[in-house]
Amino acid sequence: MQQVLNIYNSLSRKKEEFKPLNAPNVGLYVCGPTVYGDPHLGHARPAITFDILFRYLTHIGYKVRYVRNITDVGHLENDADAGEDKIAKKARLEQLEPMEVVQYYTNRYHDYMNMLKVLPPSIEPTASGHIIEQQEMIREILKNGYAYESNGSIYFDVKKYNEKYGYGTLSGRDIEEMMSNTRELDGQSEKRSSVDFALWKKAAPEHIMRWSSEWSLGFPGWHLECSVMSRKYLGDKFDIHGGGMDLKFPHHECEIAQNTAADGGASVQYWMHNNMITINGQKMGKSLGNFITLEQMFSGEHELLEQAYSPMTIRFFILQAQYRGTLDFSNEALQAAQKGLQKLFKAITVLDKIKASDKSSVNIDDLNQKCYNAINDDINTPVLIANLFDGVKMVNAINENKETINKDDLNKLKLIFKTFVVDVLGLVEENEATKDSLTDSLIEMLVNIRHDAKISKDWGTADRVRDELKKLGIIIKDQKDGYSWDIE
Amino acid sequence: MQQVLNIYNSLSRKKEEFKPLNAPNVGLYVCGPTVYGDPHLGHARPAITFDILFRYLTHIGYKVRYVRNITDVGHLENDADAGEDKIAKKARLEQLEPMEVVQYYTNRYHDYMNMLKVLPPSIEPTASGHIIEQQEMIREILKNGYAYESNGSIYFDVKKYNEKYGYGTLSGRDIEEMMSNTRELDGQSEKRSSVDFALWKKAAPEHIMRWSSEWSLGFPGWHLECSVMSRKYLGDKFDIHGGGMDLKFPHHECEIAQNTAADGGASVQYWMHNNMITINGQKMGKSLGNFITLEQMFSGEHELLEQAYSPMTIRFFILQAQYRGTLDFSNEALQAAQKGLQKLFKAITVLDKIKASDKSSVNIDDLNQKCYNAINDDINTPVLIANLFDGVKMVNAINENKETINKDDLNKLKLIFKTFVVDVLGLVEENEATKDSLTDSLIEMLVNIRHDAKISKDWGTADRVRDELKKLGIIIKDQKDGYSWDIE
Repeated sequence: MQQVLNIYNSLSRKKEEFKPLNAPNVGLYVCGPTVYGDPHLGHARPAITFDILFRYLTHIGYKVRYVRNITDVGHLENDADAGEDKIAKKARLEQLEPMEVVQYYTNRYHDYMNMLKVLPPSIEPTASGHIIEQQEMIREILKNGYAYESNGSIYFDVKKYNEKYGYGTLSGRDIEEMMSNTRELDGQSEKRSSVDFALWKKAAPEHIMRWSSEWSLGFPGWHLECSVMSRKYLGDKFDIHGGGMDLKFPHHECEIAQNTAADGGASVQYWMHNNMITINGQKMGKSLGNFITLEQMFSGEHELLEQAYSPMTIRFFILQAQYRGTLDFSNEALQAAQKGLQKLFKAITVLDKIKASDKSSVNIDDLNQKCYNAINDDINTPVLIANLFDGVKMVNAINENKETINKDDLNKLKLIFKTFVVDVLGLVEENEATKDSLTDSLIEMLVNIRHDAKISKDWGTADRVRDELKKLGIIIKDQKDGYSWDIE
Repeated sequence: MQQVLNIYNSLSRKKEEFKPLNAPNVGLYVCGPTVYGDPHLGHARPAITFDILFRYLTHIGYKVRYVRNITDVGHLENDADAGEDKIAKKARLEQLEPMEVVQYYTNRYHDYMNMLKVLPPSIEPTASGHIIEQQEMIREILKNGYAYESNGSIYFDVKKYNEKYGYGTLSGRDIEEMMSNTRELDGQSEKRSSVDFALWKKAAPEHIMRWSSEWSLGFPGWHLECSVMSRKYLGDKFDIHGGGMDLKFPHHECEIAQNTAADGGASVQYWMHNNMITINGQKMGKSLGNFITLEQMFSGEHELLEQAYSPMTIRFFILQAQYRGTLDFSNEALQAAQKGLQKLFKAITVLDKIKASDKSSVNIDDLNQKCYNAINDDINTPVLIANLFDGVKMVNAINENKETINKDDLNKLKLIFKTFVVDVLGLVEENEATKDSLTDSLIEMLVNIRHDAKISKDWGTADRVRDELKKLGIIIKDQKDGYSWDIE
């Protein structure tokens, strides 16, 4: 923990030195997916952003409890036209079961996050699994006078809260302005003010997910789960809360209000928000036809995609932008990322074969420091990657005898690549299956046969081996002390 | 659904024709793992047994909702010696968090079940995620008079229940005998009778997992979760409830009592129980030193293991016994299973290359019928596998021109292997990575070079290729029209 990490705190709007409340423990909460649809690009960015943070905090010695929730209390409804009676008469098994939908998409989310090498969080709690705890927080907020009951539902009293604590600090919104910008409530509304939000909703007859409570058979408001689960697993006050920029308002603003109304003080020390992604410069949206799921991305089956892009290409591409900037997906940019990643892994393979000299002409300590500086500067992965490419240049220069490296530095350089490429950025080589030892041995045999054929001037065999290997994408390269080969 | 499946019902103690309550829907509930330890052999058998049932029911056209729970409300405790005050003063992050343990072992369980090719269930609910529902069932049982409160805990009144409904039907136990066999309760006990069991337990100070209720800050009794979650997702009455034989009593007996006391009628139509596993003839147990985790099994790192056994070897081995019989693990038996599985997959590879004749000398329809008969007879996988080996003999005989097969039969035979080996038994070939097309092409090149070398009487090259391939475990075999090769 000699590293000093600075992170941009959305609350203070500036970079601050990260000082955990209970070092070496760190509490990290990130808003996870709503599991009513297939995982898409919009899921990949926050997952990868906070995976890097989790990996890096762990790397520099912190004991991180990383909580990322699953929002499974959704809005699936029965066919209202059928009428409640008709639905009740149907066997349980013949009815849509929201938890079956939830399970399916949760499994899909896990599968795709695994492909992207996103590590599982320490705890992955579900909203439906914490109904009692949510009801308890509602009681606390009611008791403190910042919520009211209306027709079986409970609403948060934003105006009253604002008077004491101030509402809108995180998102920089002004409550008066918000109220003047929203339409007047009609007389039928249960809410006292348009800015109030639900803590508990009485379930309509067609609403399938519902639980008993002293107020009504109902379900918790969406904002509540994150307040409750972060507090349960990380404590009243904890270190970092992350999520996508689009969650800043109203979700995170409401979380702050709920925690403060219940406990009387701020709960989160550092708020972190990743920016959105765009596709060919446009916001991604189902209505725009540019909505791309991860399955489509990995298979290439989408009209906007010229080819399939592998999970590691997507991961690497996302990391080429700093998390607070927008990120534009285009075929051109993805193809560039694919090539860059290949170059990076090729250098690692070359590095493994490099022999140490007596002296170093390269400055490895400087490279190491630059890598740490980049990530310590608000997880600046593009600068980190640029530094790693300086390392790639170094490796190639050493391999071509333009530079030299001593044994000590060679080990340090290997450690830099291992630390930053594998441990921190979580990148792995994908075509490992075709580069296994059996394949290697077989290619070596063929290269040797060609070598012997050339020595005995059997040009036919030598050329045939070279040509047939080339058809398989394997290139034999002449080198001063023999041959090397490469899979294209 | 033309197939008539007979299953042994533990409740009636005989084989019965399976008739679902709401065809084509089938409700299947299976007791899943308690996630406070690493997945071991004892987890593999029930998971695989009911995976076959799930796969087969789906194959014959049923729409199965398969619920398998995760028991996560455990008995982890704080260090009681430290005293509650001291613990309360510790930061939340510094304390043991049971859900972190739960998440870790749930992930491990999923990983190992994936390796064993056990399909994920439709819904995988957790006990901790259904506290409200459990409290509701307690209220129902209390209201019906079959439970009582004692010092903040709620107990099920087994004697009273027995008078009306009879307790012990599933396990064949007699309540009077049970009572005379248990020690008298001392005066301190909260229970009225030694046979009563807890529905809700008031938490001791050191008990970490606890929820609020009208009776006490406490946690549900273990038996309750399965009653509640099966009812919630499958209905008051559902088709099949499965689990290990060791759960018959008290767990499943108590489930029946709880459901009946709450709803007034039996809930489960068919009870199915898989038998236990032994190791070298002994019961598996931590104290006996013969407790083998799946990680140890797959890596071979256990003193009782002579080698590593792959997930598919374990799966195939488990399927070689009918689920109601005990199953003894020994190196000898596992090695035999490993060989048998290789033989099976080799036949499938051979089958792919077989050319159809005009006439068939083999009876494929008979083989097909025998396979269905085997699985329809209470999921008799060993007989099914024996039938598949008759198919293997057929394939080899056809390949050696001792038998012939016409085009229609060839397609049927391929379908039998696909249906039963892949779809129903869930077996996949494991060394696919080393048998990919690149490897194949490289080996073909080397075999051709050897062939040409022999023709040009370059015996040195021919022998060298053969010997070097042999070192890599690749055997070249002479055949009448050239060469074939095989990875050992």
